[in-house]
Amino acid sequence: MNLMKAGLASLSLLLAACTATDKTAMASRLPAAPSLDDMRAVSPVLAHNTESTLLGEVWKRPGLSSRDRSLVTLAVLISKQQTVEIAYHFNLALDNGVKPAEISEVINHLAFYTGWGNATASILSAKDVFAQRGITADQLPAVSPKLSPVDEASEKVRTAFVDRTVGPVSPGLVHYTSTALFHDLWLRPGLAPRDRSLITVSALIATGQVAQLGAHLNRAMDNGLTQREASEMLTQLAFYAGWPNVFTAVPVVNEVFAGRKKS
Amino acid sequence: MNLMKAGLASLSLLLAACTATDKTAMASRLPAAPSLDDMRAVSPVLAHNTESTLLGEVWKRPGLSSRDRSLVTLAVLISKQQTVEIAYHFNLALDNGVKPAEISEVINHLAFYTGWGNATASILSAKDVFAQRGITADQLPAVSPKLSPVDEASEKVRTAFVDRTVGPVSPGLVHYTSTALFHDLWLRPGLAPRDRSLITVSALIATGQVAQLGAHLNRAMDNGLTQREASEMLTQLAFYAGWPNVFTAVPVVNEVFAGRKKS
Amino acid sequence: MNLMKAGLASLSLLLAACTATDKTAMASRLPAAPSLDDMRAVSPVLAHNTESTLLGEVWKRPGLSSRDRSLVTLAVLISKQQTVEIAYHFNLALDNGVKPAEISEVINHLAFYTGWGNATASILSAKDVFAQRGITADQLPAVSPKLSPVDEASEKVRTAFVDRTVGPVSPGLVHYTSTALFHDLWLRPGLAPRDRSLITVSALIATGQVAQLGAHLNRAMDNGLTQREASEMLTQLAFYAGWPNVFTAVPVVNEVFAGRKKS
Repeated sequence: MNLMKAGLASLSLLLAACTATDKTAMASRLPAAPSLDDMRAVSPVLAHNTESTLLGEVWKRPGLSSRDRSLVTLAVLISKQQTVEIAYHFNLALDNGVKPAEISEVINHLAFYTGWGNATASILSAKDVFAQRGITADQLPAVSPKLSPVDEASEKVRTAFVDRTVGPVSPGLVHYTSTALFHDLWLRPGLAPRDRSLITVSALIATGQVAQLGAHLNRAMDNGLTQREASEMLTQLAFYAGWPNVFTAVPVVNEVFAGRKKS
Repeated sequence: MNLMKAGLASLSLLLAACTATDKTAMASRLPAAPSLDDMRAVSPVLAHNTESTLLGEVWKRPGLSSRDRSLVTLAVLISKQQTVEIAYHFNLALDNGVKPAEISEVINHLAFYTGWGNATASILSAKDVFAQRGITADQLPAVSPKLSPVDEASEKVRTAFVDRTVGPVSPGLVHYTSTALFHDLWLRPGLAPRDRSLITVSALIATGQVAQLGAHLNRAMDNGLTQREASEMLTQLAFYAGWPNVFTAVPVVNEVFAGRKKS
Repeated sequence: MNLMKAGLASLSLLLAACTATDKTAMASRLPAAPSLDDMRAVSPVLAHNTESTLLGEVWKRPGLSSRDRSLVTLAVLISKQQTVEIAYHFNLALDNGVKPAEISEVINHLAFYTGWGNATASILSAKDVFAQRGITADQLPAVSPKLSPVDEASEKVRTAFVDRTVGPVSPGLVHYTSTALFHDLWLRPGLAPRDRSLITVSALIATGQVAQLGAHLNRAMDNGLTQREASEMLTQLAFYAGWPNVFTAVPVVNEVFAGRKKS
């Protein structure tokens, strides 16, 4: 009977273990993130650079708040679909003062600006982080909140440009650019226009989209991003989006800065 | 004995469970896809946009068939390696009338046009979907089918161009562009030239490759893609490849449309 | 008792199995790689092309060593985050004579040149491969080795260019370009400058970054990459980075080759 009891006890332990495995099945299907020790086992200097240079120094530089650095970094991770790091950076963003509602809006915004699949690839990690931190549905922006008013003057310029350039090519694109983006997405109150601009510009640089950068950086600065912040954004982006993407963006940024001084 | 029987019964149940776990081990290593409920737990408006705007409206627009929208979408997912959504879209493509043989050819085609690793990253999901739907090897294109005939006139123009521009730089690239692509891949009968062009153009736009876009869009239209279809392709791509990639493509598309009207 | 013994024996087998599952839990969170048989179940011709054309032919072409082809391929996989294939190619690289220390440096180098998240996404696969092959920490480059001396003449040119172009835009970027890259990363002895150039150029082409390509290809050839090797690098890249990325790079490569003949 002792043996038997032992056997049954083992069985129930085992069943408990298997249930635990079932419970974590979804979590275990999220991409595994390397720890600093994992990095050390492959590249001790990468671990050192991550800890000392990046987290210990770059993130603490003046000129751009740690909250803004989190927005910039999330925009890179989502636009480059770097899902391995994303749970860590959702947590860091919340620690740095980005609100759950803002993270929610960042993901939806970047669905339009980096592609649907980039946004959906981040959902399960975000859900997991929200669940761990007890963030519930009532903290998230509604489907149809009261929208901010349209800036008619800026919309007139934008509409004229899109009608002239996109109109002859794709009426469908003109339609959704207006209805889905500039009369809906950009007016949602859960994320300030300046922050929407910050993640849009970051995503453009991270994906090498310099052709759209000038217009969006000007919009970002119209929306309140300072030149000093834009400058430090490039420093943050160099590490997360890679040096070449940022060097390719520099001449456009230079032109925007120069253009705004003249006017 | 009752306890013992119970113990052994539990054991066999447990063994069955563990075997099941083994069987699904491979499936569980595929990226987990978020449901609409998962999206709602993070961004209710993203779930709404996915359900109402994208699936409920964009996919049903006239001008481009749902079959073609599936080809465009698969090209984006593979070229941007958005593997989270890919099983869903392999299934949707089959529901929309894309044949298993065509999906097989799409993946092989995009190995050349988006990089080998992008194609292989989609294999396990496709295999899983094929197995679930009872699609077997005899429904897939052979390694060496009878190829369609070469269009000598168009090949003469292409060869002259590649010889002149690539010849001095990389004889190896000239060689495989001819043997692997234009005297093999494009002539495989499992996917029509017009559909090969549709996924090539979609992949180019999704990866911001505007430099190659003009030539391939002209080829697409020579192969039967209408201007209305190309226009609606851009609307579909805006959502899946992201707005900036499509806006960057617009001037090139405009030029191709205009050029074909003149001639 | 026999039954009981059998029961307990099963139990311990089962426990062993579950322990094994726990041990492989991390490994099972790495992306699953398709075998040639998996490919055959979806696209028999992709399996054939992989085996015959790519592994059987392209990798064996003269003009670029299999070691260099491994460096080029790893640069593509990391810069395009094609993590499905990466364990296979870490192993192949080691088989082809790339040293563990060099792989370690490749990953750290590409953190800067393709983005931090691209490098960290490869860490767990590399750690796994290193563990399987008994590669230990003492075979990896130290955090702070004795650096190679700076080439003052080339640094003077580079500094003047960066000060003039990046200086007015982002002092932070100027700072880290100097301290983190050209007075540290490029001088680390674990990977030769010529090999650093080879992976940098490969990463630029794989991500469509033609704006930075001319300068880095010239640096690569100054560092010892021959024109014949650069030419064959393009053939290798066509398969792994996709044809369009390489065709977009060709005019820049052509210009660099022509420019070096004149001077």
